[in-house]
Amino acid sequence: MKRLSGQFWDRVQDDLEKIETALKNNLNSHLDLVSEVAGHLLFSGGKRLRPLLIILCARICGYNKGDEINLSTAVEYLHAATLLHDDIVDGAALRRGKPVANSIWGNPITVLVGDFLLARASSIAAGTGKMGIIRVMAEIMEEMSQGEIDQLLRKGDLKISENDYMRVIEQKTAVLFQGACQTGAIIADAEKKKEKALSGFGLNLGIAFQLIDDLIDYISDTKTLGKEAGTDLKEGKLTLPVIHALKKASPFDRDCMEKIIRNNEFSFHDFRELIELLEKYKGISYVKDRAAFYIQSAKESLSIFAPSEYKEILMAIADYTLVRNT
Amino acid sequence: MKRLSGQFWDRVQDDLEKIETALKNNLNSHLDLVSEVAGHLLFSGGKRLRPLLIILCARICGYNKGDEINLSTAVEYLHAATLLHDDIVDGAALRRGKPVANSIWGNPITVLVGDFLLARASSIAAGTGKMGIIRVMAEIMEEMSQGEIDQLLRKGDLKISENDYMRVIEQKTAVLFQGACQTGAIIADAEKKKEKALSGFGLNLGIAFQLIDDLIDYISDTKTLGKEAGTDLKEGKLTLPVIHALKKASPFDRDCMEKIIRNNEFSFHDFRELIELLEKYKGISYVKDRAAFYIQSAKESLSIFAPSEYKEILMAIADYTLVRNT
Repeated sequence: MKRLSGQFWDRVQDDLEKIETALKNNLNSHLDLVSEVAGHLLFSGGKRLRPLLIILCARICGYNKGDEINLSTAVEYLHAATLLHDDIVDGAALRRGKPVANSIWGNPITVLVGDFLLARASSIAAGTGKMGIIRVMAEIMEEMSQGEIDQLLRKGDLKISENDYMRVIEQKTAVLFQGACQTGAIIADAEKKKEKALSGFGLNLGIAFQLIDDLIDYISDTKTLGKEAGTDLKEGKLTLPVIHALKKASPFDRDCMEKIIRNNEFSFHDFRELIELLEKYKGISYVKDRAAFYIQSAKESLSIFAPSEYKEILMAIADYTLVRNT
Repeated sequence: MKRLSGQFWDRVQDDLEKIETALKNNLNSHLDLVSEVAGHLLFSGGKRLRPLLIILCARICGYNKGDEINLSTAVEYLHAATLLHDDIVDGAALRRGKPVANSIWGNPITVLVGDFLLARASSIAAGTGKMGIIRVMAEIMEEMSQGEIDQLLRKGDLKISENDYMRVIEQKTAVLFQGACQTGAIIADAEKKKEKALSGFGLNLGIAFQLIDDLIDYISDTKTLGKEAGTDLKEGKLTLPVIHALKKASPFDRDCMEKIIRNNEFSFHDFRELIELLEKYKGISYVKDRAAFYIQSAKESLSIFAPSEYKEILMAIADYTLVRNT
């Protein structure tokens, strides 16, 4: 599995193994093909950050009775469902270095397996018997689908503002991180203050995570990325490095950038030129600064918790989010 | 709106209007396009049988505080979501006489609007605060997606048995009818005996509904149907009229039927010939008999209820299910 070397991954190794086992056991399909298609994505080297957040947030609130492992699969299934549907929406070829599911099994099966995973996520949430968890999970699903639609509608829109972009990444990504942390607190019956703090931690972490994710598409190479670099732009997705640079650029440079962006078939040379312009107008460093700001906010949210192993790991995950390159 | 003339429709007119209003008000999207795409399907003359069942089942259990109207939209949203995704899966051109949503807005938007509707259904269920309803809704979603996948995997399979077919229609259709009736009882805080009776009513009604639905594809004309007759077969979906006739046919007639079925581009003449063979081997009347059997079982499930206006209407819906032609 593709993991950053880093001390905290070692410290959560036991939980990561439990997550893998639970993801296999909870899939619960009558049909082999469902397990195969879902498994193609689910067991392709995902970092398991979201389920890990549930577990760690439950633990930091003093809970480790085991239900947190089961619940943690719900957010990973939800995440996998949106990736399956995303790949249909985006028409991308690769995900984590492997052909996307819809390129192997076709759109129809992929749509339905995505639906099945959404349903499993709901069932697992329902199985906890906790209304708070059920409500949060339903809200996440709703927000995420709207974020995805909003993003799709804005494809190729050169006038997208930083605010528009931030709303999209909050809805499509950060609410899931937020919900993972919040439900971790709820399963632990944590007091409201802690639930709120962890919810804030997750939201800020999620925003930073997506900022960096979008940045990586510009600064990483194809091999590290597991898909082609510059894919977002080829799909017409304008992300913050470009949005910021477009806003700051001289009319001449802006024209030049827009010409490259409008051409979906831009060459490697064009892409290099664009990156130089992103650097000239500090698109890259601006995004790094914004992400650092959100990580700082995330870490501050944890201030109400006394020092503990779990707090340390959550802090380390926050730091990792800034430096990761996949 | 396309309605069978029939006394019971008049008696539920008020509730049907409340359902329409609630379906508009509950959609709750930030995005106009979502309302437009969802509305294209939602307000295209659906019969509202499923939400009506929730309301009537709540009423027969003595409940009419209003929450049943709100809840009833959840099953219609869930139904609409599966239709949106189905139309992508089936590649059909028309639904209720209108072009399918994905032919107008494309697969990506349609997948995501379907996801949004699934999420709304979950949120509305969560909003009732009743664990029973939430559990049933999650189970419905899970069963339905598996039923759809099972059906897709069996496309073009000439060896599909009656049992296989029955399991598919139970999962993809009947569990939603069952869940609608059951959640109607739960919202009314009905005693377990009544919940079970209504659940049984819904399951049997749903099976009969799908049997007749599949039959209509052979015996109705394109105008009444709102889509081309024989569509199921063109999509490779073998349904009970054909499954039964294939089982009973002489080797020669079986060959002849298989030849027509295997040719996705069969002519009108071929289709007529097939229908003659279905009639020869009683494929049509067998399905009518089976549907009548399930309707009888459905009606018997209601025996524990004292005579009432709502019982009469539920009985009338059961009878209507057998004679409808759209």
